[in-house]
Order: sequence, then C-alpha cells, then structure tokens
Amino acid sequence: MKKKNMGGRRRPPTGDDQRWPGYATGIRVCKSHFNAVCKSERTPVETKEAISMASSSSLSPPKVPKELYFINREKVLNSLRQHLTETSRPLHGFVLLQGGEEQTRYCTDHLELFRQESYFAYLFGVREPGFYGTIDIATGKSILFAPRLPPDYAVWLGKIKPLSYFQEKYMVNMVYYTDEIVGVLQGHYKEPGKPLLFLLHGLNTDSNNFSKPAQFEGMEKFETELNTLHPILSECRVFKSDHELALIQFANDISSEAHVEVMKKTRVGMKEYQMESMFLHHTYMYGGCRHCSYTCICATGENRIANGIYVLWFSAVLHYGHAAAPNDRTFEDGDMALLDMGAEYQFYGSDITCSFPVNGKFTSDQSLIYNAVLKAHNAVINAMKPGVCWVDMHKLAEKIILESLKKGGVMVGNVDEMMAARLGAVFMPHGLGHFLGIDTHDPGGYPKGTERSKEPGLKSLRTVRELQERMVITVEPGCYFIDALLVPAMENESTSKFFNHEVIGRFKDFGGVRIESDVLVTANGSKNMTSVPREISDIEAIMAGAPWPSNKTAPSNS
Amino acid sequence: MKKKNMGGRRRPPTGDDQRWPGYATGIRVCKSHFNAVCKSERTPVETKEAISMASSSSLSPPKVPKELYFINREKVLNSLRQHLTETSRPLHGFVLLQGGEEQTRYCTDHLELFRQESYFAYLFGVREPGFYGTIDIATGKSILFAPRLPPDYAVWLGKIKPLSYFQEKYMVNMVYYTDEIVGVLQGHYKEPGKPLLFLLHGLNTDSNNFSKPAQFEGMEKFETELNTLHPILSECRVFKSDHELALIQFANDISSEAHVEVMKKTRVGMKEYQMESMFLHHTYMYGGCRHCSYTCICATGENRIANGIYVLWFSAVLHYGHAAAPNDRTFEDGDMALLDMGAEYQFYGSDITCSFPVNGKFTSDQSLIYNAVLKAHNAVINAMKPGVCWVDMHKLAEKIILESLKKGGVMVGNVDEMMAARLGAVFMPHGLGHFLGIDTHDPGGYPKGTERSKEPGLKSLRTVRELQERMVITVEPGCYFIDALLVPAMENESTSKFFNHEVIGRFKDFGGVRIESDVLVTANGSKNMTSVPREISDIEAIMAGAPWPSNKTAPSNS
Repeated sequence: MKKKNMGGRRRPPTGDDQRWPGYATGIRVCKSHFNAVCKSERTPVETKEAISMASSSSLSPPKVPKELYFINREKVLNSLRQHLTETSRPLHGFVLLQGGEEQTRYCTDHLELFRQESYFAYLFGVREPGFYGTIDIATGKSILFAPRLPPDYAVWLGKIKPLSYFQEKYMVNMVYYTDEIVGVLQGHYKEPGKPLLFLLHGLNTDSNNFSKPAQFEGMEKFETELNTLHPILSECRVFKSDHELALIQFANDISSEAHVEVMKKTRVGMKEYQMESMFLHHTYMYGGCRHCSYTCICATGENRIANGIYVLWFSAVLHYGHAAAPNDRTFEDGDMALLDMGAEYQFYGSDITCSFPVNGKFTSDQSLIYNAVLKAHNAVINAMKPGVCWVDMHKLAEKIILESLKKGGVMVGNVDEMMAARLGAVFMPHGLGHFLGIDTHDPGGYPKGTERSKEPGLKSLRTVRELQERMVITVEPGCYFIDALLVPAMENESTSKFFNHEVIGRFKDFGGVRIESDVLVTANGSKNMTSVPREISDIEAIMAGAPWPSNKTAPSNS
Repeated sequence: MKKKNMGGRRRPPTGDDQRWPGYATGIRVCKSHFNAVCKSERTPVETKEAISMASSSSLSPPKVPKELYFINREKVLNSLRQHLTETSRPLHGFVLLQGGEEQTRYCTDHLELFRQESYFAYLFGVREPGFYGTIDIATGKSILFAPRLPPDYAVWLGKIKPLSYFQEKYMVNMVYYTDEIVGVLQGHYKEPGKPLLFLLHGLNTDSNNFSKPAQFEGMEKFETELNTLHPILSECRVFKSDHELALIQFANDISSEAHVEVMKKTRVGMKEYQMESMFLHHTYMYGGCRHCSYTCICATGENRIANGIYVLWFSAVLHYGHAAAPNDRTFEDGDMALLDMGAEYQFYGSDITCSFPVNGKFTSDQSLIYNAVLKAHNAVINAMKPGVCWVDMHKLAEKIILESLKKGGVMVGNVDEMMAARLGAVFMPHGLGHFLGIDTHDPGGYPKGTERSKEPGLKSLRTVRELQERMVITVEPGCYFIDALLVPAMENESTSKFFNHEVIGRFKDFGGVRIESDVLVTANGSKNMTSVPREISDIEAIMAGAPWPSNKTAPSNS
C-alpha cells in the first residue's frame, strides 16, 4: 500500500533511472546484437480485483524477450567460429546439447519440479524437459528436437502442440522430434565423412562435477569433440547481455522487496522457516518466481550461522547440511538473523543476504560488527571497475573489517601484519563473492591459465579474475565468530597478540554478519543491482514500521 | 483473526472431538504397541509478537513422537517373522534399507531440497541423507548407519553431532557409521555362514518403477534376498497407526485451512500460480510444511483441467506436464478453478481438491455439475466401511454422476444401460481415489492376487481392494467435459442416444469439477479427515467474506 505513491514502479535507490538499456522502459533489444525492438514487456494487471490483491508489491513479472536466447546463441556461435579460425580448423559441424530430463522421486510417481539444465537454458530457453538443441556451425541455423508426444496424451488434450509452436516460442530455425536427430543432422551436413558434433564436457569449478555430454541413439554415426565447447560457452555466460541484465535486475528487485517484507515482519519468537515462507511467497505471488536461486538460508545463533557458511561455501553434497538444518530454530531476543535468500526469474537468479537483530534494535556490539562488514561491502562496490583484480577486492574487504575490529577494540596491533598473517580469514573464511547468472554460482570463475590460491580465505574464492564490463558478481563480505577458527588463532604464539582476548569473549555467542549484494561491472565502475536497506538507522526504522524506500536521497552506495 | 474465538483450536466440522486417540489432546501413544505416553506435543507460541503474526491460523505444527517409527518397525518385524514362520524359514538375518542421497542439479553445486525415500522414512524417520538402517530379525534390534562427517565439517562446526544424537533422535538401539556396516552386521549375526539380508525390491504399481535395493561396499560377504520384504513392508504401510493418523490429520487441517484462505482471496484477473503461492505460504508459515505432497495443480479452463487430470493420473514422467503448464494462466470471469493441493507434514501427506468459480458465484450449469460430483463424493464417504469393495465405490460415484446428469438434462435414458456401456468413464476417466500416506500415491494398491481391470475408468483405479479399518484413501470423484472422450462416445452408434447433444454443447468450454477428500476407514464406517467448505452456499458465502467454519452445525458428510 505504502508504495502506491511511487507511481506503481519503485525508483532505484541510486536516484539513477538510466541503469542499462531496457529495464526501466520495458526490455529493449541490444542493437549491436539484433536489430529489432521489443514492445513494452510489463504484464498488465487485468482487473480491479487483481490490483487490490497485488497492492503488496509495486512490481509485476516482465515478459521474457525471445531474442534473449537468439543473442546468446549468436554470441556462442561467433566465439566458436573465431576459435576454430584461430586454430585453423574448418567451420563446420554442430554444437549439440541435451536438455534436462524430468525426474521422479525414488521408485514413486512423484514428479520433482523440473528445472532446465543451465547451459541448455542459456542457449535455448526451453522450459520443458526432454529436448535436444543444436546449432549448425556452417550455417548458423538452430534446431530444437522435441520429445514425441505419447499417443494417449494426444488423445487426451485433443489439440497437440505442433512443432511450430516451439519454433515460434523459442525463436529457432527448425524443430523436429528427438527420434529424428540422426537423420536431420546427417541431412544438414554438407561435408564428406561423419558429421562432427561439439559436445559439452567440462569441469564445474564450484562442484567439481563434470557436465554430461549429450547422448542419443545412433551417436556412432558422428565424430564427437569434447574439449572445445565448454570453455567457450562458459566464457560467453560470464558477460551478460542487456536482456540477461534485465532479468537479473527483476530477480533482484522482487527479492529485495521480499527481504524488506521479511524485515518488517520479523519478531522474536518466530521460526526461521517463517522468514523463508514469507520470502518465497512474496517472490512467487508478486514476481511469478517459481524457483529460488538456492535453498533459503535463514540462520540465527552461532552454530547455525557457521553451518550456513559451510553449506554455502564449502561443500557440494553435505550430509549434515540443508536437510539437518531445516530453518526450524525459534528466534530469541538478542539474536542476529542472517537471511541469505534470492529468487530466480526465468532462469536468472539473485543472491542477497541481509543481517539484522530479530528484536529490531542493534546492540553496540552488533553495530560494531555490522558496520565493519557494511564498510567493507561499500568500499568494494566503490572500488570495483574493469581491470580491478577480484583477489584485491577480497583483501580490501578483509583489511577494512580488521581495521574496524581494531577500532572497536576487538583486535590489537598493526593491520598490515594481521593481513600478512591471514587473520582476515579467521573472521571471513569464505570468498568475497562469485559470478551470478543462470546458476547462483555461475561458471567461468577459473578459466584456463588461472589458479586457485592455497591461502586461507583466498582458497575459497570462486574466481580470481580481473573484473570486466558486464560481469555480475556478488559482493558478500562477512564477519563471524567461530570457535573452530578463532581459538587456534588466539592460541597460536605468533598471532595471539593481535586478539583482545577479553573483548572477544563478549562475542562468543554472537554468530556473525554477512551483507550480500549483486553488483554489475560497468564501463567505468559498478552498479549495485540489489536495493535493500543497509544502514542501521534504515533497518531499525523499517523494523519499527517506517516505509521503504525511505525519503532519504543519499544512498549508502551505488 | 476470525478464528480467535474458537479458543485457538479449530473444532472438527463433524462436531466429533473424539476422532482417534492422540490428535485432539496432543499425540498419545497407541497402547497396544507401546506402553508409554507422550507429553502434549503442541509447540507453545513463545511471545506476544509471535501470536500476532500467527493470527491467520488457529493451528501450529505438532511435534512428532519418536515412537511412530519404533511402532512401524515393530509392525514390520512382527509381520516378517510371521511370514518366515509360515513359510518354515529361520528367524534370522537383517532387514536392510538404504536411505536417500542428496542430489546436486546437473553439474552444478546447486543442492536440491532433500526428501527422504519413503520406505526408509517409514521405518526410521531419518530426515538426513546418506543413512542406512537395519533391523536384526533375531533380536529385533534396530541399527542406523550414519555417514561419517567430512573432517573439515567437524572443524567448522566445532561440535560434531555424536552418534548418540541420532540414537536418541530416532529411537534406535545402536548407531554406527556407514563404513562400518559389514563388520557390525557380521558381528551381530550368530548363525553359521554368510549373514542373510532382506533387501527392498519391488514394483511400484503407480509409476511402474522398481525400488532400489540397498548397496554398499562388501555386499559379497552377505546372502541377499529380494522377494520377501517389499510386499510385507508395503502392506504394513497400508494400515495407519494412531501416530500416523495424527500427522495425516494435521496435514489435512493445515491444508484445509489453506484452501479456505485461497478461496477467500481468489479473484478474476489473478494468476493460477498466485493460488499456489498462497497455499504454499499458509502451510509453511503456519504449519511448518516445507514439502508438498505433490506439485500443486491450479487448473482453470477446459484444456488446462484435462491436462491436470492427465498429469495426476496417467503418467509417471510426462514431457508436457508440469513444466509446460506452470500454473500461469490468468483467471477469466466465468472460469471454474480446480485446485488440487496438499501439504506434507513430517513425511505424511494430504491430497485435497476444491472446485469453485473464480468470480465467487456458481452459474446454474456449474451448480449442476458441482452438485453431481458432491453428491457422489458424499455418497461414497457414507457408504465406505470395512468389507466394501473400492471398485463398487467407483461405480457408485459414476452412477450418481450419471443420474444427476440425466436429471439435469445432459443425459437421456436408462442409467443402468449407461453404466453397462461404461459411459461413467467418459465423464470421470480417472479412478475414484488412492491410498494416502508417506507417498501421495501410497503403495499397496495391488497386492499379489489382485488384478487391474481393462475397462475404461476402472483400469485407472490405483487399488481394487476391499476397504479395511485404518486405510486412508482419497475420495475424488470428478466430472469433466473433454472433447477427446465425449466426441467419440457421442458419435458412437450404440451410445449416441444417451447424450442430449444440444445441452452438452453448453458445456464445451466448461472444463470440469473434482472434489477430493482424504478419508479414513473406521471400524464401522469412515471419517472424512478433510474439512473444507463443500456446499455451494458455503463456498459462495466464504468467497463473499463470511467466516469459516460457519456457525452451521450439520456437516454435509462425516
């Protein structure tokens, strides 16, 4: 209700209506890629009744321009052709990807909610399971292969979706059935010998899993090549088009709004999962976000927050993770909450963390740690621009946090010496941030020629690259008090002197603070795509009932 | 708010506070199984703030008694021992089940929300992935095998959960690590030769998939037996204990309340997914239900409802199913909505369908079809009792629907002749209902000696059994107008005469109606565990703002 006087659309808190082309005025097409302009893509609200229902949000889900995937394909095709030319290889063959399959749960007929495989989603945008997709490198033509309908389904629905439906929907040149792959590809191949297939095979440096190359009956009739496609496709995904940015921005907008809703309603005595439920509801109800970027982490209390860090940063498959920590703790007076939650809109994600006291009022100790992290968060965003190395940003965040801890009496001595002893990693054991896109941990963080550090903290970085324009990366410094890390450092002969043991005792059950925003690298700097209250005064005001956005004009960062 | 005068707990609409032991007064233990009594299991609401947040529900999630799984194990052990005795086999060896594993999405580190495999959940109640569980047939002792913690996790959390934590939490006799299985089982086996393992292997008659027998390193040191356990365990799951009923009842209560919330808020112009979002939010926020029994089906309009039937009844893996029909249609004035949504609480599910016009007012045609289905729904529930055959219940529903259609001028002629021509299946092509429990389509529908019919409608039945006490089964008659079924029947020489072709023309875009409740078979009859408004007058009143439960005393069925 409070936002109605905003004219139905929230102003970005930066006071900057420009952002990137396409968002504020409906999504427009990037002309360098495609010479057409989409219509305004806001879904109109159909009736008065619906307006009254939607009054809890100023947002509504934008339509997705089909050109998005066309542009992605063109980008990959151009990049692949360039690579083949540079390596003196012929410009023919097919890029072939297999989409995801629907899964049932164990032996039952319980269907899991389907989510497309991310590389396939990037190139084709297909929401249905069971597809294959190809790009003919010689002609640039794209072909989708749809699963053939079971005959009784056709009887049931009366009208079967014709293949042309998918051709139009996903803006590809042709659509056939999956059982026609062999013949169609052979028919399109104009060279002698077996047609060459470029398949997707490569390491995901976050999970250490390998992507699964396409498989189909009759593959022996083709030559296959596993090494070329993955790095090229991953690299293309690192740099976001205007269309992609518009979706990431919407995911950020609806998730930011949802975080504020949660903040407003948080009370001592509630359960962690109630925060999760409110967040999920807001982003689905008003944003049409059926999926989340990741399972919400709603952590309170010391061990729970440590657990949350662990789940987030250190383990692909963690036995005692999400399932054992199902956000079911009850908020106690004095708790800090760490809410790491982000919605996904049409494959593109957001990843946002807010930290605040559940009783709505920061103590002086909570303010000390919170402001240390906020200062690091803002300093990094202000320092970000093309050419800056992400490792330096990580160290900048560490240094600012250590300086604040020193100023607050928690640490003692020379901060450069603390840095040299890698004490930053005692308080922030995870990396500063990661690429964000169709995957929460988007690929491309460690391309060929880069190497993971072995030092504490730095070894957890999901990328060590120099920043470049159109990268979207999370900035998520944190400061935590975790016995398992603090005690050894405080007992270590050479580092013990840096800790004010008495003061640190006060923080034993503190837990921790993380502040996380999604940031776009622009030509000259950076732009924060997340807009949630960050200043303590704003958070306290909102939790006491004040409106958001507030009427203040000066943003804390941009 | 409106429910506060109910004293904080909703009265069952039957006016019967007895129900089964344990529910109304906190869960009590079934004495025949276990001679202890649990404490009151309602979670207290901690603070005033929490009360104000929780005012949208009169419910709060009950605790789950550990005895539930102990009782399940005892039941299976007794049943297995009896079977072995009857077949003159020795009473030794181990029941061994492998729990579910956590999954990542494709090659990424995106963790899917873990849900335990249902047979494992039934016997051990374990919420964490990566476990094995065994019952020693000779001694009756139960052992869990927990995954060994990765060493860095231990460092992180400081305090590792000791194995005794799981022993206490899941009320088993012993807990070891999974890498100790071979030695532990060998140590417990007192017979000569290789220890015998009873593994789970059998057909799920809904999915046509087979359950996966446990596997572990060193299996060659054991004899394995695949045929005995599955039918015994499935049969045990058919008959619900008091503890199980209490959980199914809670899942029904919170889901019923959520359906009413959705009904209250439904307006023309809203999106189908907004119904889903409101339902999910209510059941999670106030019921702590993190999982749903199945993906919500929010269908409006002719094809969408047909699609919904298809997804629900005819296909384990359907390529054009959920993913292609993501509840994204906008409600139009005059639409009937068919909302099939049920929450799962602590593994135990609910499965509820409400049908109503989105504009809040039934037309006379909508009333005709709705009341035909409601009459069938109520007649079945009233006729249900031990000894009654489910196939007869299905036919009863068909007959009542056909009679109503005749009375309404849709059909013409002798209803028995229509039944003989299987015309009931033209309007209700799916089965009347299915067992419900840890799975939405709970196993046990076709035990050895039963056979699936080949006749229209009847072939879709998920069980053909005689009803017995403590079965929980859905009663979900429906009446749909689906061209693909109607046109052939109306054009068929021998059945054409039964249709009033002119009147049926009015229903071309009608879609359909389904009414679904979860019903317990009691010693002398049945009890409807679902409590949502069913009478047209009640639905219209609620959609116009009246409170629910209403002040009327006479329930439409019980």
